[in-house]
Amino acid sequence: MMGSVTLATSARRAPTRFPFHATARTFSSTGIRCKPQLVILGSGWGGYEVLRGVDKNRWNVTTITPTNYFNFTPLLASCSVGTLELGAAVEPVRRYTPKTSAYQAWCDHIDFDRKILQCMPATAPPSFGNADSSTPPQQHHFQLHYDTLIIAVGAYNQTFNVPGVKEHAHFLKDAADARRIRSRILECFEQANQPTITDEDRRKLLHFCIVGGGPTGVEFAAELHDLLRDDISKHYPSLSKFTKISLFDVAPRILGSFDEGLQEWATVKFKREGINILTQHHVERVENGKLFVKEQGEVPFGLLVWSTGLAPNPLIQSITELKKHPKTSSLITDAQCRVIGNDGKVNPDVYAIGDAAMIQDTPLPATAQVANQKAKYLTKRLNKIIKGKEHTEGFVFHNAGSLAYLGDWQAVYDRTKAENVKTKDAGRLAWLLWRSAYFTRTLSIRNKILVPLYWFMNWIFGRDLTRF
Amino acid sequence: MMGSVTLATSARRAPTRFPFHATARTFSSTGIRCKPQLVILGSGWGGYEVLRGVDKNRWNVTTITPTNYFNFTPLLASCSVGTLELGAAVEPVRRYTPKTSAYQAWCDHIDFDRKILQCMPATAPPSFGNADSSTPPQQHHFQLHYDTLIIAVGAYNQTFNVPGVKEHAHFLKDAADARRIRSRILECFEQANQPTITDEDRRKLLHFCIVGGGPTGVEFAAELHDLLRDDISKHYPSLSKFTKISLFDVAPRILGSFDEGLQEWATVKFKREGINILTQHHVERVENGKLFVKEQGEVPFGLLVWSTGLAPNPLIQSITELKKHPKTSSLITDAQCRVIGNDGKVNPDVYAIGDAAMIQDTPLPATAQVANQKAKYLTKRLNKIIKGKEHTEGFVFHNAGSLAYLGDWQAVYDRTKAENVKTKDAGRLAWLLWRSAYFTRTLSIRNKILVPLYWFMNWIFGRDLTRF
Repeated sequence: MMGSVTLATSARRAPTRFPFHATARTFSSTGIRCKPQLVILGSGWGGYEVLRGVDKNRWNVTTITPTNYFNFTPLLASCSVGTLELGAAVEPVRRYTPKTSAYQAWCDHIDFDRKILQCMPATAPPSFGNADSSTPPQQHHFQLHYDTLIIAVGAYNQTFNVPGVKEHAHFLKDAADARRIRSRILECFEQANQPTITDEDRRKLLHFCIVGGGPTGVEFAAELHDLLRDDISKHYPSLSKFTKISLFDVAPRILGSFDEGLQEWATVKFKREGINILTQHHVERVENGKLFVKEQGEVPFGLLVWSTGLAPNPLIQSITELKKHPKTSSLITDAQCRVIGNDGKVNPDVYAIGDAAMIQDTPLPATAQVANQKAKYLTKRLNKIIKGKEHTEGFVFHNAGSLAYLGDWQAVYDRTKAENVKTKDAGRLAWLLWRSAYFTRTLSIRNKILVPLYWFMNWIFGRDLTRF
Repeated sequence: MMGSVTLATSARRAPTRFPFHATARTFSSTGIRCKPQLVILGSGWGGYEVLRGVDKNRWNVTTITPTNYFNFTPLLASCSVGTLELGAAVEPVRRYTPKTSAYQAWCDHIDFDRKILQCMPATAPPSFGNADSSTPPQQHHFQLHYDTLIIAVGAYNQTFNVPGVKEHAHFLKDAADARRIRSRILECFEQANQPTITDEDRRKLLHFCIVGGGPTGVEFAAELHDLLRDDISKHYPSLSKFTKISLFDVAPRILGSFDEGLQEWATVKFKREGINILTQHHVERVENGKLFVKEQGEVPFGLLVWSTGLAPNPLIQSITELKKHPKTSSLITDAQCRVIGNDGKVNPDVYAIGDAAMIQDTPLPATAQVANQKAKYLTKRLNKIIKGKEHTEGFVFHNAGSLAYLGDWQAVYDRTKAENVKTKDAGRLAWLLWRSAYFTRTLSIRNKILVPLYWFMNWIFGRDLTRF
């Protein structure tokens, strides 16, 4: 295809020359190579963990990811209200260059027979006001060979095809989302603070709606409530009385995945704090600044955060050769996380982990915890295999329980399904420690220092409410 | 005017009710009031300093500012390359609520006779998909009465009407600019890192152009050079050889305001580091991704930062009743910083400080230093006057010298015009200390802690190169 290049990435091999061209020129075939090519699709809880742990001296690792960083998702809700600076909740994939290479790109087709990935740069093609800028996108495609492939592309946000969600709602899945939400919250207050606005419009602007009563939605509601109570009340004292938080869900209870007692406890706490819990409510349509709820009719809002679970990723949808789950269309894998063809044959060179994958007959929740454990398992496996050692054991999930922050330094911690957990403590610090402990090896030292520091600084000085 | 409200802001008087409506309803005239209304236009080095220092128990202070924060400008160049998080370089004007009120708005007309300001919200009018959204902007205007007014609106960026600058160049005047620049720098590297790009385009993308050899342009070039050398070389090793920094100026030397020896020293240092210094070059036109330079013809670039001084602010341009400088059209004031009418009569209730003002027959550079000193002088004056004390002494400028960071932990410090300065030390720490010392009372404790901490963290761990 014109303009596209095939490359067998080997940053180590031609360190002084630009790898693509070096490789593109040197090996058009992928025959001769010093190290097997391991390509990781995605830099989330699955992909980033493998990137971190895999033996980079034995594998020639390439990451294909539309962002150039890993999101420490448990902290995004905090970032979205300014409790944390975003820099503390992300890790650059290029921490591991030059030992590995990474391209900010989408993979939009996999040729499993030829072991070739078709990728599309996730950055805009450069334009210098010349013809270059007008070259059709497909000419910016590039191809990449793999020996071993890890599909860890995750999933998209589920909208249930409710009209207007993509246009008018905010998701809370990555750092960019969090930044946009933070900016919008503060904009709402600045708009409401204008003297030309009616109290009625102030009420509309300061109505913060959340659709989805899962952990993400609940934690965002909690963090937002903290922000309103601790800081907004100081910076916009005359506006506090206009603020309202509403949490919608179609289910009869919030935190559906949690133990009933905890659901009840959370509900009572939220209600006491004046957070509107509207379970068994159905959002039918979203327009600019208003929801249409079956049970309520028109509901104006200043900010809408949408978090109603996962939808299949386009790459996964495009894959027809592999076994997929009929409902979630996740890739079905064997116990070793290897994908399975429609013919039932296991593909020994292609692994799938994270939200886009599921082990045959072993349904597990699509959580960071599962993705991360699978990645650790896979890392161990790859590091054994590359040494020529045998590795037959399958993946086993160790449930560490689940936790949701409820604001006001409190959290619910569901250990009913958890194994060997000693404590049920639930303060914010406990929450942070628990998370840090669980994800300890994921955050860089830099952020291990910054995160508690921000907690402390904001506890003393309040959150930063500037907006730019 | 329909939809507009006149208000005599008195947040203290009606604390439980929304001030606008309270006041708008309670006093349509401005006759009865407990405290005189001090209105500050702008939240820069002049306006923010007055806001900080003025006696808020005796003055009823209102700030009108298009942003809701103060920019600590000396740190913006550092922020634009990720050496500092932006949060550490800004201070929210609402630190002083509820003791003062602030509206994120533009003042676009001043009625000096009626003492009425015409203001326009700087936030978009809220839209809930109803008629509200289609109301014409002038209906969102509001009016504000003042007893004493401080005009500290600063100035705009000078483009000398070079076509394409506003569309294709970045300025470096506030936090939003710095964030956009940081994001663009990293985008350039991600674009250049795509395998589909030619080396020629890589060279174009990684050509960073700066127009204006003043302190801002020079410091940005220096910070950028630090970034390329310290971090880019690690994260994008194969791209380092394509990077280039070019600094353009029409003048024969950079840092024109500095002592000749220091100019020379800076020039030699930059040249040694491979920064292109193109003095006596004239940029005639800017297009998407390319400059047109009289002496060179077409010059492609990935990022263009434009910093060629100041242009008069629209509000200042709109003022016809007052004496203005024929060239800079700054407002002419007497030694007490009071504006002067065309009839030569001093207006005792209207002060002008900062880049938009100039004391009659005493030209001073348009710097943060001057603005800040005038603000401190004015604060002292206002706090005396309000107590009924007399205050006749005029403003006297104490030159503390000027300093420019040159990268690589070095700086030039021009003390030739400075008074009682003991040292000529010039490391980055000295630079920071000097600045901190000089501006010490401006930064909040929070940022006094964060700024050195970021220096330290980035010195140890490197800059954060994530982009979202």
